[in-house]
Amino acid sequence: MEVGQVLRMNGGIGDTSYASNSLVQQKVLTLTKPIREEAITNLHSRMLPPSLAIADLGCSSGPNTFFVVSEVIRTVEKLCRHLNQQSPEYQVFLNDLPGNDFNNIFRSLGSFKDKLSREMVSGVGPCFLSGIPGSFYGRLFPSKSLHFVHSSYSLMWLSQVPEGVENNKGNIYMASTSPSNVLKAYYQQFQRDFSLFLQCRAKEVVEGGCMVLTFLGRRSDDPSSNECCLIWELMATALKDLASKGMIKEEEVDSFNIPQYTPCLSEVEEEVVKEGSFIINHTEVSAVDWNAYSDWNTMDNEFSEAEIVSDGAYNVTKCMRAVAEPLLISHFGEDIIEQIFRSYQEVLTDHMSKHKTEFINVTVSMTRRA
Amino acid sequence: MEVGQVLRMNGGIGDTSYASNSLVQQKVLTLTKPIREEAITNLHSRMLPPSLAIADLGCSSGPNTFFVVSEVIRTVEKLCRHLNQQSPEYQVFLNDLPGNDFNNIFRSLGSFKDKLSREMVSGVGPCFLSGIPGSFYGRLFPSKSLHFVHSSYSLMWLSQVPEGVENNKGNIYMASTSPSNVLKAYYQQFQRDFSLFLQCRAKEVVEGGCMVLTFLGRRSDDPSSNECCLIWELMATALKDLASKGMIKEEEVDSFNIPQYTPCLSEVEEEVVKEGSFIINHTEVSAVDWNAYSDWNTMDNEFSEAEIVSDGAYNVTKCMRAVAEPLLISHFGEDIIEQIFRSYQEVLTDHMSKHKTEFINVTVSMTRRA
Repeated sequence: MEVGQVLRMNGGIGDTSYASNSLVQQKVLTLTKPIREEAITNLHSRMLPPSLAIADLGCSSGPNTFFVVSEVIRTVEKLCRHLNQQSPEYQVFLNDLPGNDFNNIFRSLGSFKDKLSREMVSGVGPCFLSGIPGSFYGRLFPSKSLHFVHSSYSLMWLSQVPEGVENNKGNIYMASTSPSNVLKAYYQQFQRDFSLFLQCRAKEVVEGGCMVLTFLGRRSDDPSSNECCLIWELMATALKDLASKGMIKEEEVDSFNIPQYTPCLSEVEEEVVKEGSFIINHTEVSAVDWNAYSDWNTMDNEFSEAEIVSDGAYNVTKCMRAVAEPLLISHFGEDIIEQIFRSYQEVLTDHMSKHKTEFINVTVSMTRRA
Repeated sequence: MEVGQVLRMNGGIGDTSYASNSLVQQKVLTLTKPIREEAITNLHSRMLPPSLAIADLGCSSGPNTFFVVSEVIRTVEKLCRHLNQQSPEYQVFLNDLPGNDFNNIFRSLGSFKDKLSREMVSGVGPCFLSGIPGSFYGRLFPSKSLHFVHSSYSLMWLSQVPEGVENNKGNIYMASTSPSNVLKAYYQQFQRDFSLFLQCRAKEVVEGGCMVLTFLGRRSDDPSSNECCLIWELMATALKDLASKGMIKEEEVDSFNIPQYTPCLSEVEEEVVKEGSFIINHTEVSAVDWNAYSDWNTMDNEFSEAEIVSDGAYNVTKCMRAVAEPLLISHFGEDIIEQIFRSYQEVLTDHMSKHKTEFINVTVSMTRRA
């Protein structure tokens, strides 16, 4: 499997699209907002760039795509008012793999710009937006061309399934029953990928430029900890159910592995220190419920919506489907995909009725050394 | 009608897509190649930029999208070998309206890069590619950020249907029977749009930077000349046939006007001189047959292909459909679209059996003044 060819969030704006099912990722963006604000405020006051170049890596397609960009621009504009300075010119680079639904982004560009100018009554600097197709595990931008790099819930995706994990049978990700060579192979792939990421960004970010990265990660030192692996272990259970019914082959499940690594904070820090081009300013570990609607106030909503909202497993299934469907289809085929997610929802329903379920977010804010 | 919302080449790679029906436009690119080569050679030898920023405005989606970019890179690489210099870094900006099929472009990025490195065995400088959604009748790039701007068969599209052409009844474009106020309104819209284009590019192109623009145009001084208007006049005939059969309303035909202006060379030159930021180096007027396959050597091809190739009206209909279908659908609706093009093909068959048919290309190469 070529991850770069296969991995993408579900496109469009339909029922199973990422655009319609990315509230968890938006909650994470809301949680990490103060870290970005601190970074951009610091950057702006130190550098006062007349043209501010912002890149969002792994921007996906949907409301979240413009979330960070709008926030950064609002923050800078407020600073400019406060300091009585002219607005900078904004260069906004939205990056994702070539399979991402850039058409959908570009078609909502008009409403993004309209919304921004409605919000910023005192005006906004000119904003030049572009789409950058390609893997962030390679160079994407000219040397010293970026001031602020952001990435949220993207860097846990690896460039490939690690080699030598053939004996991870019965699992589709790291799990408590994974042989130790599998855990090691996953970690080493993360190290290779993230250090390559850092090397590329070190060339592209100007001295004094900032980078705020949020990983889907874990608190525990144990890479096979439930807090990061369970979401996929339940998917493995669902797949094995289908295999036991003869609907997919057991070998298909055995040979399927998720190209992801959910690091703990110290693993992220270690790579940053090893690479050496960035100084870490701020770190944070936070959590968000698997069910984005868990704290939704049903009183404020229509009955039909309240009903949906109360079914946590339904919500989590839709969220995971928006993220993982193209990956699953590429391995198991299109015909079985409805069954897979039906089975997954059943497994989730059972589990979520008994346990508290959270994703762990690892955020690191850093500055490019002089 | 909001032209920016409606105008786009047919997306995808299917039978009616622009990607599969843009051989005429490719022939024009081949015809104008020497002018681009001259411009880029001149630019490179004068400026030797370590990072070369190239923009293709109205890039569409299909084989033509990478045609000019590949050519420019090949030219520069040859110059570098010849002068024993290091390759520059390439920044490639592909622009079109937000409705363009950028997904299709981005998904063929891999094969473009593979092909380029196969062709250039001695290596190519790093190439950073981005998609820029937006109208070129407005700012698209930061100030002084471009070295070479190219646009082919795009600038004849106006930003809007000119106002005050309600009395252009029975026509859908300028025609010999158009009232004089209609011709004037079209010309003034062209002047406004093209001068705005020049003002924007004047800000974006560095001093000494180059611009090569090819318009679908005309030789004659008369803006309602057959050589530029007939292709639409035959479409009007097709539409009126359908109206006479009660399949569309006559008022619908009367209220439909193509947002295009096909200038002659002196009209283009006049705006460049008036705006004042660019010096014209080279101009050329050329022609290309409506039927891109008119000089196709059927001996070299399969029989089935030869059959298609020999039917000029069929080819022209497909070409025009790829270009104008979204525009026609927005006005007449989707249900009638097959009928419209069937009727158009009949009208074309009749006309093309009796007359020689050519598009006229007006090309201007210019340099940004110091």
